[in-house]
Amino acid sequence: MNDPRPTVGMVGAGQLARMCWQAGIGLDIDLRVLAARANDAAARVTPDPVIGDPDDPNALAAFARCCDVLTLDHELVDTATLLDLEAAGHAVRPGGETLRFAQDKAFQRRHFAAAGLPVPEHAVVTTRGDAEAFARDHGWSVVLKRPRGGYDGRGVWQVDDRDGLGRAWEQAAASAGDVLVEQGVGLVAEVAVLLARRPGGQQVAAPLVETVQRDGMLRELVVPARVPADVHPEAMDLAARVADLVAVVGVCAVELFWDGSGLLVNEIAVRPHNCGHWTIDGAATSQFENHLRAVLVWPLGAMHATHPAVCSVNVVGHDDSSWPQAHLAAALGTSDVHVHLYGKQPRTGRTLGHVTATADTIDAARERAHAAAERLMAPGTTPDPAT
Amino acid sequence: MNDPRPTVGMVGAGQLARMCWQAGIGLDIDLRVLAARANDAAARVTPDPVIGDPDDPNALAAFARCCDVLTLDHELVDTATLLDLEAAGHAVRPGGETLRFAQDKAFQRRHFAAAGLPVPEHAVVTTRGDAEAFARDHGWSVVLKRPRGGYDGRGVWQVDDRDGLGRAWEQAAASAGDVLVEQGVGLVAEVAVLLARRPGGQQVAAPLVETVQRDGMLRELVVPARVPADVHPEAMDLAARVADLVAVVGVCAVELFWDGSGLLVNEIAVRPHNCGHWTIDGAATSQFENHLRAVLVWPLGAMHATHPAVCSVNVVGHDDSSWPQAHLAAALGTSDVHVHLYGKQPRTGRTLGHVTATADTIDAARERAHAAAERLMAPGTTPDPAT
Repeated sequence: MNDPRPTVGMVGAGQLARMCWQAGIGLDIDLRVLAARANDAAARVTPDPVIGDPDDPNALAAFARCCDVLTLDHELVDTATLLDLEAAGHAVRPGGETLRFAQDKAFQRRHFAAAGLPVPEHAVVTTRGDAEAFARDHGWSVVLKRPRGGYDGRGVWQVDDRDGLGRAWEQAAASAGDVLVEQGVGLVAEVAVLLARRPGGQQVAAPLVETVQRDGMLRELVVPARVPADVHPEAMDLAARVADLVAVVGVCAVELFWDGSGLLVNEIAVRPHNCGHWTIDGAATSQFENHLRAVLVWPLGAMHATHPAVCSVNVVGHDDSSWPQAHLAAALGTSDVHVHLYGKQPRTGRTLGHVTATADTIDAARERAHAAAERLMAPGTTPDPAT
Repeated sequence: MNDPRPTVGMVGAGQLARMCWQAGIGLDIDLRVLAARANDAAARVTPDPVIGDPDDPNALAAFARCCDVLTLDHELVDTATLLDLEAAGHAVRPGGETLRFAQDKAFQRRHFAAAGLPVPEHAVVTTRGDAEAFARDHGWSVVLKRPRGGYDGRGVWQVDDRDGLGRAWEQAAASAGDVLVEQGVGLVAEVAVLLARRPGGQQVAAPLVETVQRDGMLRELVVPARVPADVHPEAMDLAARVADLVAVVGVCAVELFWDGSGLLVNEIAVRPHNCGHWTIDGAATSQFENHLRAVLVWPLGAMHATHPAVCSVNVVGHDDSSWPQAHLAAALGTSDVHVHLYGKQPRTGRTLGHVTATADTIDAARERAHAAAERLMAPGTTPDPAT
């Protein structure tokens, strides 16, 4: 009998691929990664990573041929190439049409608004004057966004007045192309729905998570989200509609603004996402296992929380930090937490890992997760940039 | 700054090494395995496995030189070689002196009895006549054991009368050497304590697990063990004494007989063990993570159960079974369980994986775990022996 083990090919070899691999080992799935560099987070831990350029259609096609299904660790993949691979008969999950929603914020806003989904007031502009006109019409503050390529707060500028807009415009419009301008949202909380979806449309969602950002980067997750009870089902409903609209296969994260009275769709990701990291230690099935199960068209696992409260805190490199690995024993000795390190060289602003604590109360979970994360980010010898 | 990530070298590349690797990825530990074959369970999932013969002292020494600490996936390693490596300054955890207890059942019985630990009545004999004399003195049934090399019921013969002893003796004494003869225990339950121990002596134990054997093989785990409340602390106390006596570093499993009135020490393992597999999904810290933490002399994690009831069932190949992987989607679709497959070629009597269910009651956990395991062991095309 032939070996029935499937091979999943993942484009990109960051921490998402790395954590997928941990889940894949248990299900005896062969995960191969297409890595830009041999020391990428997932390339370091998987046998036989393929080192190659995901922007090279030939490299991507060769990679697809050695896999039963192709999926994504990041969204920086050319959608046209993916559509060509799909047309050639390869299983690409999520597909190129889905990926376009995640890659292009202007495209996403336009289609979500047309479908009746609540999104911030917005316009796509090409001149500073048009951006100012939008602000005059809708009031300050406004947010400028490059429609493509931004992440972790990069490519996004919150501006509160005309001078600020002038400064932001210089950067936003520095590369040619349209700029998305949006009305600022009076935020009370940012929340997110993490769900997995199969080709037939079956979905399984994790409980609503509250995301805490700092400098545009996701820094902390709290489950359950501290918003009124009726916000939870409303968010689930919105996320389910978004997932169906973009026809995602695999895991999808729907980030939402809650302004105290209603929800607005902020952004989506069509891959495992930081907002679902808590599921490894705090949910019945992790997002990584369910991503693999979804792209392999296997039944999905339940994602309910297994503890009353869960908190995950990201470990982010800063100017004075050393390798979190150098502080691992100290962190493990003082906190009852689950530590996940990504094997990445420390660098300021780089997410190097996360820690999750489960507890009976949110306060207890937060206290422990933060204590461990702070210990891991302790000052130390600055890493030698040459290594 | 130098890369602070430690390299743990594991002799053997079976499922224990494989599951250690899943835990090691999260802590960013480099795990290298010394594998007999390139398709061993852990060799298939770790980068750069070393293919070599653990019986070759030079191979073992070369392997030790590329690791910060040496540890074991199995106990079939020459203790003298390990002692030489320790003398040469290598960190070997557990060490050769500890390993001898696990390798040699006669040695173990003698030392445990001398330390006042409760063990079955036993004798080391060299003739069939001496074995019969033991049975006359202590009554039938008796158990014959080869002191070394047995596992999964191999090397153990339970005999109820003189004729049975005659047949068993032929096999037990087939290879030269002593035979251990023991008084049969009127078993009510077999239980086990899984603990992790650091060099300084600090120990962390998981709750008492009930082990269900079939044909001498461990088939099922139930947590908490269904024995009277006062048996639990007594078992913990015995296991702690055993661990200190053998001075284990790493994870240790102490298997105990409970005859309805008292506990007897049956066997020990000085490595992660099947009786601790439930900890991956049902305890605050898994045995695999704690094994790595112990051998690296890092603080240990708590191992309390995170659910009221946990059951793990082994997936064992039988004559009619096909790859469990071929039935994985079906098993995932009908049961809310955690499936762990070891990537091993199916073969009759071979443990191919395990499934764990957590629940509010033991009955519910058992029902789900068994349903999934049975589905994975469904009849199917017999694997092609040539593959």
